[in-house]
Amino acid sequence: MAAMSEDDLIASFFAPLAGEGGLGLADDVARLALSENHELIVTTDGVVAGVHFFADDPPASIARKALRVNLSDLAAKGARPLGFLLTLALPETWTRDWLAAFAAALGEDARAYHCPLLGGDTVRTPGPLTIAITALGETPRGTMTARTTARVGDVVAVTGSVGDGALGLAVRHARHEAAPPAWIAAIGEEKAGALLQRYLEPLPRACMAEAVRGWASCAMDVSDGLVGDLRKLTAASGVSASVDLDLAPLSAAAAAALAADESLARQIFAGGDDYEILLTVAPEHYDALAAAARAAGCGLTPIGEITPVSEPFRVMWRGTPAAFGKGSFSHF
Amino acid sequence: MAAMSEDDLIASFFAPLAGEGGLGLADDVARLALSENHELIVTTDGVVAGVHFFADDPPASIARKALRVNLSDLAAKGARPLGFLLTLALPETWTRDWLAAFAAALGEDARAYHCPLLGGDTVRTPGPLTIAITALGETPRGTMTARTTARVGDVVAVTGSVGDGALGLAVRHARHEAAPPAWIAAIGEEKAGALLQRYLEPLPRACMAEAVRGWASCAMDVSDGLVGDLRKLTAASGVSASVDLDLAPLSAAAAAALAADESLARQIFAGGDDYEILLTVAPEHYDALAAAARAAGCGLTPIGEITPVSEPFRVMWRGTPAAFGKGSFSHF
Repeated sequence: MAAMSEDDLIASFFAPLAGEGGLGLADDVARLALSENHELIVTTDGVVAGVHFFADDPPASIARKALRVNLSDLAAKGARPLGFLLTLALPETWTRDWLAAFAAALGEDARAYHCPLLGGDTVRTPGPLTIAITALGETPRGTMTARTTARVGDVVAVTGSVGDGALGLAVRHARHEAAPPAWIAAIGEEKAGALLQRYLEPLPRACMAEAVRGWASCAMDVSDGLVGDLRKLTAASGVSASVDLDLAPLSAAAAAALAADESLARQIFAGGDDYEILLTVAPEHYDALAAAARAAGCGLTPIGEITPVSEPFRVMWRGTPAAFGKGSFSHF
Repeated sequence: MAAMSEDDLIASFFAPLAGEGGLGLADDVARLALSENHELIVTTDGVVAGVHFFADDPPASIARKALRVNLSDLAAKGARPLGFLLTLALPETWTRDWLAAFAAALGEDARAYHCPLLGGDTVRTPGPLTIAITALGETPRGTMTARTTARVGDVVAVTGSVGDGALGLAVRHARHEAAPPAWIAAIGEEKAGALLQRYLEPLPRACMAEAVRGWASCAMDVSDGLVGDLRKLTAASGVSASVDLDLAPLSAAAAAALAADESLARQIFAGGDDYEILLTVAPEHYDALAAAARAAGCGLTPIGEITPVSEPFRVMWRGTPAAFGKGSFSHF
């Protein structure tokens, strides 16, 4: 499709998605006013075909995941989305149908999450499809929930359920394998499909942003595995933690998978792609935050507490210290 | 170098570049307050090895160009830089020396242009090196210089000199060719080197931002060639223009190249990679803007005027309408 110029491509597929600040994608920049007494919260994430997703994943899923991993970061910081910028490096093999499906899904998510397209750049690449999204959000000045502010005695809790994304990736891999793991057959097609869907299209906890900002003492999104990300949070805050993974929230599908194969615990608790919010909260504020999580439809589950830095980082699983406590999936 | 984790890589090479809002690159987001009564101006540009630069270009030049093309957009909109986010997709072949040189040059530019690193994402790619930068800036509310606001009777002018980047690209290509074009030998090594340097490391007119905002009626940066970009500006503004390319500012090197080979006019005026500011200004404000451009060291040259949309888009060259008037380099 090299016959289409960049300007035509933008006009056809992306200009219809542009928010007010995007100036119709007809200028080189976007312009955006923050709400009074707010500050800008900004994050960027890149994904590459063959590394972060499969080139033959549905274009709608690729679009949603590329945007949602950024929305997950904003939510965990308590920020309200303002919009996003998209850099799209397209291989020569792109087709009009592929791009139309990609742009349509991106537009749906932009509306659903109140995060309009503000601008971008479309380039060609001799390599794999590569997508970089920068998402902009805002919080009232000084209220962003940091990663460095967990306090001894805080409850450690996590939204939704963990492990689905990592197990979903295993399901995705199995579709290319002659002999898929036995647990996938054991849990059945419906549960396997649910895991795959969570991998393909994570569910950023955007509805939790305000409650996180209001009640959590510290938060981050879980993208590299629950245990590894908790370790990062405690290190950044200069504290330690004691958690029990038997308390960790599992979906029905992940619970069935774990029942079929105990060794999946590593993937569930130290895998990646959860996009839940891991947070700490003072005990007296826990109930308010849990109520907000119920209202948001994702729920919140306490899994332990923040301890002094002099204590060991303690991760229990089935009554003993978990051997995979140091593991963390690295995207790089 | 796959043995280095993303966290180690960020700590070694990029955390030292982080500005205050970057939170030491230890969180998933950056936080930034705008000046009072200012609004955010944001732009993003992606570059791919083998498309926008050569994989064996010096890493310092690759870094500078990736950032500067974004700074050029901010300058043309009258915006003061606030900082930038970097998404870096690294091929497996990266080395510590390469990345150290890349990061050092990026840090130098970040300081020189008062545009600190705020955050980013580093991923691996099976494809070519790919860099996406999002630059953030601010203008006093309502003062951004748009592309849509040229007025009939305005002077059309351009900063610095045009054509150097496109000719520099030709010089770069010639280094791989058995029989380089005769004009390169004709102008001599020093001038060829100057053109190459302008291609490798454009000079964004950051010092012009305030004057552009104050005096220009309309502006954009010239990235796709003077003639094509003027056409875009007039189309966006609903006007036409009459310009004479014999008035257009050429560097000594470009003038010598053109003297050696008249056919280079197409590359000079319709090539790309100028990163000058094309602007329109009411005649009564021209002198103030020109004085600011002299002070900024780049100069400003009038090349024509804005005419009613009922007039033809008129580009003269050597006394006749230029045949390449419709041409525009497309990055895509």
